[in-house]
Amino acid sequence: MFEELQPEIEDLIEQRRFHQLKETLATFEPGEISELLEQLERDDALLTLRSLPSDRAATVFARLSHDIQLAFVESLSPDGERLAELLNDLNPDDRTAFFVGLPETVVQRFLSILNPKERQNAIRLLGYPEDSVGRLATTDYIALRPDWSVEQALRHIRRFGAKSETINVIYVVDKNWRLQDDIHVRDILLADPEATIRELMAHRLVTLNADDDQEKAVAIFREYDRAILPVIDDNGVMVGIVTFDDVLDVAEEEATEDIQKLGGSEALDSPYMATPLHTLIEKRAGWLAILFVGEMFTATAMGYFETEIAKAVVLSLFVPLVISSGGNSGSQAATIIIRALAVGEVRLRDWWRVMGREVISGLALGFILGLIGFTRVIVWALAFGMYGEHWLLLGITIGLALIGVVLWGTMAGALLPFILKGLGLDPATSSAPFVATLVDVTGLVIYFSVAAFVLSGTLL
Amino acid sequence: MFEELQPEIEDLIEQRRFHQLKETLATFEPGEISELLEQLERDDALLTLRSLPSDRAATVFARLSHDIQLAFVESLSPDGERLAELLNDLNPDDRTAFFVGLPETVVQRFLSILNPKERQNAIRLLGYPEDSVGRLATTDYIALRPDWSVEQALRHIRRFGAKSETINVIYVVDKNWRLQDDIHVRDILLADPEATIRELMAHRLVTLNADDDQEKAVAIFREYDRAILPVIDDNGVMVGIVTFDDVLDVAEEEATEDIQKLGGSEALDSPYMATPLHTLIEKRAGWLAILFVGEMFTATAMGYFETEIAKAVVLSLFVPLVISSGGNSGSQAATIIIRALAVGEVRLRDWWRVMGREVISGLALGFILGLIGFTRVIVWALAFGMYGEHWLLLGITIGLALIGVVLWGTMAGALLPFILKGLGLDPATSSAPFVATLVDVTGLVIYFSVAAFVLSGTLL
Repeated sequence: MFEELQPEIEDLIEQRRFHQLKETLATFEPGEISELLEQLERDDALLTLRSLPSDRAATVFARLSHDIQLAFVESLSPDGERLAELLNDLNPDDRTAFFVGLPETVVQRFLSILNPKERQNAIRLLGYPEDSVGRLATTDYIALRPDWSVEQALRHIRRFGAKSETINVIYVVDKNWRLQDDIHVRDILLADPEATIRELMAHRLVTLNADDDQEKAVAIFREYDRAILPVIDDNGVMVGIVTFDDVLDVAEEEATEDIQKLGGSEALDSPYMATPLHTLIEKRAGWLAILFVGEMFTATAMGYFETEIAKAVVLSLFVPLVISSGGNSGSQAATIIIRALAVGEVRLRDWWRVMGREVISGLALGFILGLIGFTRVIVWALAFGMYGEHWLLLGITIGLALIGVVLWGTMAGALLPFILKGLGLDPATSSAPFVATLVDVTGLVIYFSVAAFVLSGTLL
Repeated sequence: MFEELQPEIEDLIEQRRFHQLKETLATFEPGEISELLEQLERDDALLTLRSLPSDRAATVFARLSHDIQLAFVESLSPDGERLAELLNDLNPDDRTAFFVGLPETVVQRFLSILNPKERQNAIRLLGYPEDSVGRLATTDYIALRPDWSVEQALRHIRRFGAKSETINVIYVVDKNWRLQDDIHVRDILLADPEATIRELMAHRLVTLNADDDQEKAVAIFREYDRAILPVIDDNGVMVGIVTFDDVLDVAEEEATEDIQKLGGSEALDSPYMATPLHTLIEKRAGWLAILFVGEMFTATAMGYFETEIAKAVVLSLFVPLVISSGGNSGSQAATIIIRALAVGEVRLRDWWRVMGREVISGLALGFILGLIGFTRVIVWALAFGMYGEHWLLLGITIGLALIGVVLWGTMAGALLPFILKGLGLDPATSSAPFVATLVDVTGLVIYFSVAAFVLSGTLL
């Protein structure tokens, strides 16, 4: 329905009928308009954005990708007033997100345009670490004092409610702005107007700390099923609120990052199509080159067994099969454990129990693949007369090597995420391909060692 | 803080001090209690759950893993009244989720225990497909008629508000229960008591269809920043509401499934530690065996080049290095594209533009790895006198083969997700390891073809 509208919007822009454009856009949600703008030609997008009323422009602006945001701000620069309006109208959390990608000097210039109150907020929120809850916080909430009456509170809510992100939950703070409790607006509405706010306090407060990692916020929102949570600093002073929509975005973005890292590249940090081609290549080339250098050790390992290969070329035929099985089982174990760690199903101290399960899994999977591999050699030998006179010993070599390699791959894959996390690193970082590379090299050693043992005196 | 309490709770259970247990638990959130129960011994968990008041037991029950739910229901079975109370107290969406995993006969028995209204709801919600929005819907919402006055509406809200999941958003339906609009409770509260509900309607309704995929619900919640959305059927009749907390769970679970599939196993469908060992092995063995059978073609491919390998054993040394580079670049491209498709950054019709970007990326990455590989051969040859007299030609072979293999891996990795999605399959299904396997086999052919071309007349 909405996509069909794009040509109409483009026509209106082309014909410079901005009044009608404005009217058409008035019926759409900010999320729809931002999606439309991402599809339009850059100049058309900027013109459309300028045609919106300033508070609405701010809401749409917050949802755009960083490069359109920058282009828009640049296009506004000659018009200092309009720029100031936009920056002041942005929600504090969206403003923080926009500022984060900018050079220090530009941020300073923008901060100087803000009015004193917004500037103070912006500086405070920017002070929290990247990926911390503080960076998600917005200061547009309603706060009451415990000694106010319900009637006073209602007057305050009516006065400041419009600017607040939500009036469903109201916060109670003391005179030092330390958070005391939160209250549902319905409890205030249904209360006796003479009662004090203190009497309504239920003291079942759940809070986030501004320094907490954003992933922790996702876990807490899931555990407590809240739509909004207050953020406090180490002194219990209220910093702001975090709403579920930001948390949903964080959950999706964290998952995207983890998936991209698991696939062996850096996190792109921007939508695929919006990522410039050179960035796309840079983010992938680094890890690919590191893995390649790691994988070079396979050539070294193979070099050690060159005489064995020359004696029994047939051994080389199964090299890709054996080592890739180790790699696959390692990636499998690594991804399962990494995700379990990310969503908190498994904790660092569970590593010992996990290893117990993975050793049994690795043995079972190794036996299954070993049996298939053994059968493959036997069937081809009997049916096509391949692999020479020692086919049975070759089959045994392949089978035993597979058990060893798959068990080793599974253990390495399960253990590496714990080691990375224990070292304070992100377990997702390139783990699956890294495990595959590690297991390729060591798998060769296992394979040729088994071969040397089983085939000694016959093929070797 | 909360974890330290576990020993205390265990003591209270051991000493059968249920009254004190009840009092202690009263101060905790359902999410905290369910987490505690998952840690406790099974029998202790069931006793603790029984000690909770029945409506609270239902809330905690909804958050437990399926096997504890089943054990609890079985333990209640002799006490028909308590079981009926639990099933009737469950939120409709949580009840649907519980029923879904049960055998048909058991569901029938449970349905017969429900009171008529809840039974009708339960049957209707169970009728929607698995992973559809209908399965997430709850019927605990407040509906008004457009011709009611604000005063009538407020009376209705006060009367039924307690049982509703939310009173923040109220729904307006006609006499056939077709959804007309939604209204924020604050708009009703601030309106003239004499006004009609129709006058408050803003007609900016965003709805979900009960048959929609749950992933679509996540996208719509993100686009519109709503905490609650109404669900309608094909006739516009209101089915229920979906709340952000269920959507956050869906987002996390979908990401977990995608990650597990990308890692080359089936989705586990339950937390790692709660998955029985035999299930864990079964879910992994299937894909591992399929990939293994696919990888067997490497042995066949290598077999075709056995004479080349026998003539130039040195070629075999680089087999793992060359084919794993193709596999790594293929996994990288596949994971990036799969995630972009999953979150809607890229659509099926974009495949042509994506391929354009990936061909350039693949060439660039291939040149980088080709150059490193070429350098590796040259340096080892000059420094250690390895690889015989034709080391320069060998270096050229490795370099060219890497360009071809990486380009091919990247293209295959980027294209496969589009093909799977075009066929109506889940692009995440084992794509990364599947691409790696495909590229291993074809990479061998590319490698030995390049070798035959470059080394013909010298080594071969």
